[in-house]
Amino acid sequence: MDKLRVALLGATGMVGQRFVKLLENHEMFELSVLAASPSSAGKKYQDAAHWCIEGEVPEKFGEMTVVKADLENVKKEDNVDFVFSALPSDVARIVEAEFAKAGIPVISDASAYRMEEDVPILIPEVNPDHLELVKKQSNRGWRSFIVTNPNCTSNVLILALKPLQENFGIKRVIVSTMQSLSGAGWFGVTSMAILDNILPYIKNEEEKVEREALKIMGEFDGSKIIPAEFKISASCHRVNVLEGHTEAVFVELKSKADPKQVIEAMKNFRGRPQELNLPTAPENPIIVRMEADRPQPRLDRYAGNGMSVVVGRIRSDTVLDNGIKFVLVGHNTIRGAAGNAVLNAELAVREGYL
Amino acid sequence: MDKLRVALLGATGMVGQRFVKLLENHEMFELSVLAASPSSAGKKYQDAAHWCIEGEVPEKFGEMTVVKADLENVKKEDNVDFVFSALPSDVARIVEAEFAKAGIPVISDASAYRMEEDVPILIPEVNPDHLELVKKQSNRGWRSFIVTNPNCTSNVLILALKPLQENFGIKRVIVSTMQSLSGAGWFGVTSMAILDNILPYIKNEEEKVEREALKIMGEFDGSKIIPAEFKISASCHRVNVLEGHTEAVFVELKSKADPKQVIEAMKNFRGRPQELNLPTAPENPIIVRMEADRPQPRLDRYAGNGMSVVVGRIRSDTVLDNGIKFVLVGHNTIRGAAGNAVLNAELAVREGYL
Amino acid sequence: MDKLRVALLGATGMVGQRFVKLLENHEMFELSVLAASPSSAGKKYQDAAHWCIEGEVPEKFGEMTVVKADLENVKKEDNVDFVFSALPSDVARIVEAEFAKAGIPVISDASAYRMEEDVPILIPEVNPDHLELVKKQSNRGWRSFIVTNPNCTSNVLILALKPLQENFGIKRVIVSTMQSLSGAGWFGVTSMAILDNILPYIKNEEEKVEREALKIMGEFDGSKIIPAEFKISASCHRVNVLEGHTEAVFVELKSKADPKQVIEAMKNFRGRPQELNLPTAPENPIIVRMEADRPQPRLDRYAGNGMSVVVGRIRSDTVLDNGIKFVLVGHNTIRGAAGNAVLNAELAVREGYL
Amino acid sequence: MDKLRVALLGATGMVGQRFVKLLENHEMFELSVLAASPSSAGKKYQDAAHWCIEGEVPEKFGEMTVVKADLENVKKEDNVDFVFSALPSDVARIVEAEFAKAGIPVISDASAYRMEEDVPILIPEVNPDHLELVKKQSNRGWRSFIVTNPNCTSNVLILALKPLQENFGIKRVIVSTMQSLSGAGWFGVTSMAILDNILPYIKNEEEKVEREALKIMGEFDGSKIIPAEFKISASCHRVNVLEGHTEAVFVELKSKADPKQVIEAMKNFRGRPQELNLPTAPENPIIVRMEADRPQPRLDRYAGNGMSVVVGRIRSDTVLDNGIKFVLVGHNTIRGAAGNAVLNAELAVREGYL
Repeated sequence: MDKLRVALLGATGMVGQRFVKLLENHEMFELSVLAASPSSAGKKYQDAAHWCIEGEVPEKFGEMTVVKADLENVKKEDNVDFVFSALPSDVARIVEAEFAKAGIPVISDASAYRMEEDVPILIPEVNPDHLELVKKQSNRGWRSFIVTNPNCTSNVLILALKPLQENFGIKRVIVSTMQSLSGAGWFGVTSMAILDNILPYIKNEEEKVEREALKIMGEFDGSKIIPAEFKISASCHRVNVLEGHTEAVFVELKSKADPKQVIEAMKNFRGRPQELNLPTAPENPIIVRMEADRPQPRLDRYAGNGMSVVVGRIRSDTVLDNGIKFVLVGHNTIRGAAGNAVLNAELAVREGYL
Repeated sequence: MDKLRVALLGATGMVGQRFVKLLENHEMFELSVLAASPSSAGKKYQDAAHWCIEGEVPEKFGEMTVVKADLENVKKEDNVDFVFSALPSDVARIVEAEFAKAGIPVISDASAYRMEEDVPILIPEVNPDHLELVKKQSNRGWRSFIVTNPNCTSNVLILALKPLQENFGIKRVIVSTMQSLSGAGWFGVTSMAILDNILPYIKNEEEKVEREALKIMGEFDGSKIIPAEFKISASCHRVNVLEGHTEAVFVELKSKADPKQVIEAMKNFRGRPQELNLPTAPENPIIVRMEADRPQPRLDRYAGNGMSVVVGRIRSDTVLDNGIKFVLVGHNTIRGAAGNAVLNAELAVREGYL
Repeated sequence: MDKLRVALLGATGMVGQRFVKLLENHEMFELSVLAASPSSAGKKYQDAAHWCIEGEVPEKFGEMTVVKADLENVKKEDNVDFVFSALPSDVARIVEAEFAKAGIPVISDASAYRMEEDVPILIPEVNPDHLELVKKQSNRGWRSFIVTNPNCTSNVLILALKPLQENFGIKRVIVSTMQSLSGAGWFGVTSMAILDNILPYIKNEEEKVEREALKIMGEFDGSKIIPAEFKISASCHRVNVLEGHTEAVFVELKSKADPKQVIEAMKNFRGRPQELNLPTAPENPIIVRMEADRPQPRLDRYAGNGMSVVVGRIRSDTVLDNGIKFVLVGHNTIRGAAGNAVLNAELAVREGYL
Repeated sequence: MDKLRVALLGATGMVGQRFVKLLENHEMFELSVLAASPSSAGKKYQDAAHWCIEGEVPEKFGEMTVVKADLENVKKEDNVDFVFSALPSDVARIVEAEFAKAGIPVISDASAYRMEEDVPILIPEVNPDHLELVKKQSNRGWRSFIVTNPNCTSNVLILALKPLQENFGIKRVIVSTMQSLSGAGWFGVTSMAILDNILPYIKNEEEKVEREALKIMGEFDGSKIIPAEFKISASCHRVNVLEGHTEAVFVELKSKADPKQVIEAMKNFRGRPQELNLPTAPENPIIVRMEADRPQPRLDRYAGNGMSVVVGRIRSDTVLDNGIKFVLVGHNTIRGAAGNAVLNAELAVREGYL
């Protein structure tokens, strides 16, 4: 198979850099256009991007010239098969529609279209069937479509909840997060704010977590998504950790399950990407650690190349009926952002959408 | 009034140092004996203690010779009116009993006797009437008594819960903690373990929180404590913060209350120490912050000289019935340890027990 | 004596906040005008300043309205006797001259005028006689004058060098710094850049250190400053410390001195502020610690209320002739900025310049 | 070629773990015995070692049983060709001699024998000819020999100095270090000591740096090492960085060189391991970065798989005659410890000593 040619919108930011790294030697996709804001356009990628993730700028991209992230400039550069978007939400709203309208599919990490009725928020292991929803977007007069990613915190949480929903049913979820700095972007948290400290507030984060989970874990009836019916409440906090979100999760199940059963359900969980053996799919979407003091973000964030969620401390909770509590760690800019989008694109190819 | 003479058992550790600082110029107590483990005995305090809290060793104590922390050696040094204990739990079990038996009251921060039926765990603002329980200890053949402190995490949590219990009733509590390094003691957490990391496990901590709250918030019927009947579940985590525990709390109230009412209840909360105007009592046991991003441990841990709990982000929780969620910060080695014990002693004096 | 009325230009930044705190209850100065950039003008101080140093906004200033930091607006507000300036350098160049021209003295922490021939860079313990240089500024047609502060890194270094210069003479100085985050301002260093890291470069810092030391330690011959003749070389690095600069210093003395003599010289060092008993003068400009592992920034930065430099590890250096090496810690935003400026103003009052 | 069979003494500590990782798939060596202290002996490696470096315990070693680190127990386990030693210095002194005496070569990272006259401290790129010195050890009645590693701080410093010595000659060196936590071992620095702090003292470190450099950079005249004649002075400090030592270096050259010439000399520097194309040899022993703000430990410590030293900020120094100053970063437990020892062993094989 020839590789699909793809443009990356928002190539210079932190999530953009993760995309670049994941696409460096991708077997299905050829990253042929790096696009970003007007201030970066015209510069070499290595000069435009303040490279801040491990390793160096991949050699093949360092010398590539960045173009402005809009339809006209991207098309001038290359006749791409689809685009990845890591644009800021306000820009994404305009630019992503432009591409979809013009017949170029958009696999997006931006939040702009997430909650639109005809746009799926996709986690390939969780709700691959929601992909079909994109067909409804033709009603907008678009010749192609947009698929979105969940918020990073939701993403890794939902992965861990999915086998519980499947096996035991979920009634209520309470989650308290300890989120890494990279979730706020390179300039998001100043060092003086976080040294020897915790920030107990992340703007709009709790709302996103509470909203997106029900949509993603909802049912697609062939024409629309019927949200899941459980209740979810979040308290979101920023801690002095570079990468990797940690979440303490309390779940009320519909039917009783002891920790052993939960461990089994999580360990055995596989999804469509594992069935299809997609290139970016981790062998285990969930890795269960049995040590008393795991998961830890610094040690566990790169499990499954950053695509697995690591769960530990699975134990009974006596406050909620059929209660279970556990702690999870997931890589917020890989599984929670660029990696999930790449996996979405891989799924879309195999399912005939790209 | 002449000052009461007091010995400090366990004077060299982190909590011991907090005691020393709080007692430097205390209007009711004269710290006349510094006692510690055999390896410290015979040394000057400034040499025995690896002083690690802000400021320097108080001058009047630096040159004092440390004695072995047992009845014989303390008595040889001075005829003290009572003792503070910051001993390790296993040592405390033996030594504290020795003092109580010999007629010397023990105001303890150790966990050894906390869960004994005839020993109160006291937070002066929360359950001052439990102090009377010490009379039962004469059944042990003791001429005096032991009063204990809660675990640091419980202490600051319970202070925040008390006005909710009083005003609205409590049915369930879920708490996820982000605890500071000092809670583990000076050598408790090695730097390589916690830099760019979170430890999702603190030995025995969740059990302590779940157990102590019900006893402290229970009712004393004149002869025994009837535990409170709500349910409580904790998930405890260590973060890279020097001092000050942060806790995300989710509460199901018995009767509905909106955030405004909760704010009022917390703001107006006063206890017996405030009535009696005890020297170490903070003006407000709970300080409510209205900013979106408070409380923060580095900024708020010293509120009320480390004796107030700072609560923020009070908002409705939609998962629990009559749900309320909030974030709190409290100083774990002052309010959560030495400061609460000193306040216990002040209460005991005014109530005629010392 | 009536208090002098003073305006603070640049009141909202980190150094501005230090000024506000130092002037809260000052016995000689009444802070009557808080001035800042146009974007802050018109707001209450507590809303305009993102208060980020320990404690809360002093009550008397919180409700004060901030005015625009220029001559017209400050004069409209109050007829001040002089101004403190913590303005950014480019703004300072214009605004400070405006005040000096109009007859209002400027005690500045900005770098704009430091290297001008007729402007002293003043450390009251080091070169109080340089104050007279301000008389030369009348040649500019100014009715009053500007006095400047050194760069924070230079300030604490020069304090430690002064007794060496006085007692033994200095030939060469090599200094390697480990500078705190606050030196770069609240937004100066993003958290992702410095966690688990060191930044080995601070723009223009080495040049400032190398240039300012020779001027400050030079001789004023009644009409101009003849720079000191020793050589100085710096390597400046940023580390993950909140406040307090640490510097490793290697000095070649003119005449041989063993560590004991150096210790004595530093301990005995007193300057004009100590003679005059100025309110902000620390008892000891230099505090020598004899422990093997001091000074440490977290433990020593507030020595002498942040106005003392703490020196330790004084030992011989075998590479330089008559070599001595030591480590120092100084508070960069107190002694290195606002505190030194306040001390400059106190000196100027007592010497009849204000 | 058959792989040489090797035992690792001190397999459970941090440096031991680095050895294990480097030897997991080594083309020349088969790690067949894991040996450690009596308290670890008899346990599976994965239980005995508190694995604390990135990734997981290599599968092939996890289930291996640890034996006691002495001659008898190692020999019982396997007839090894040589041993690596990461033993504590006091144990090393006895045990390493035991092996050497018995005819089993020891490639050591311990400091015990470093300064012995007949024992080389080897950096393969710097003084490969010193290896011959081991022949002198037969005078001890040993049937085999010990080769040692430099201290980690010395190692990375000397690598950067070598091309300067070769090309321009060195007269004086002043170095100020910012050393990582791992240099002190897993339990070496408690978190409360280093958060928001710097420790300005590392026991014996300055002495080691000053002593070892002259031996390593000295000349081997066929029978003994004549120490290099330049002077060196160090000030060593611990900072809150996980891995990677940063050093600010000031050098007085014998003959004048501008920064460009120094950059060229460092870039072009290659040693015997590069000639021989040894498996663990980095392509470039020194990597020169031209950006103003490099090297940084978090970004640069894994350059050349942790075997390269990264140098930046090469500039003139005006204090020293023919002065040059620069900053370097090197991985202290790879190049500075286990990696250098593995490279020593590779060199010893190719040169016919193993």
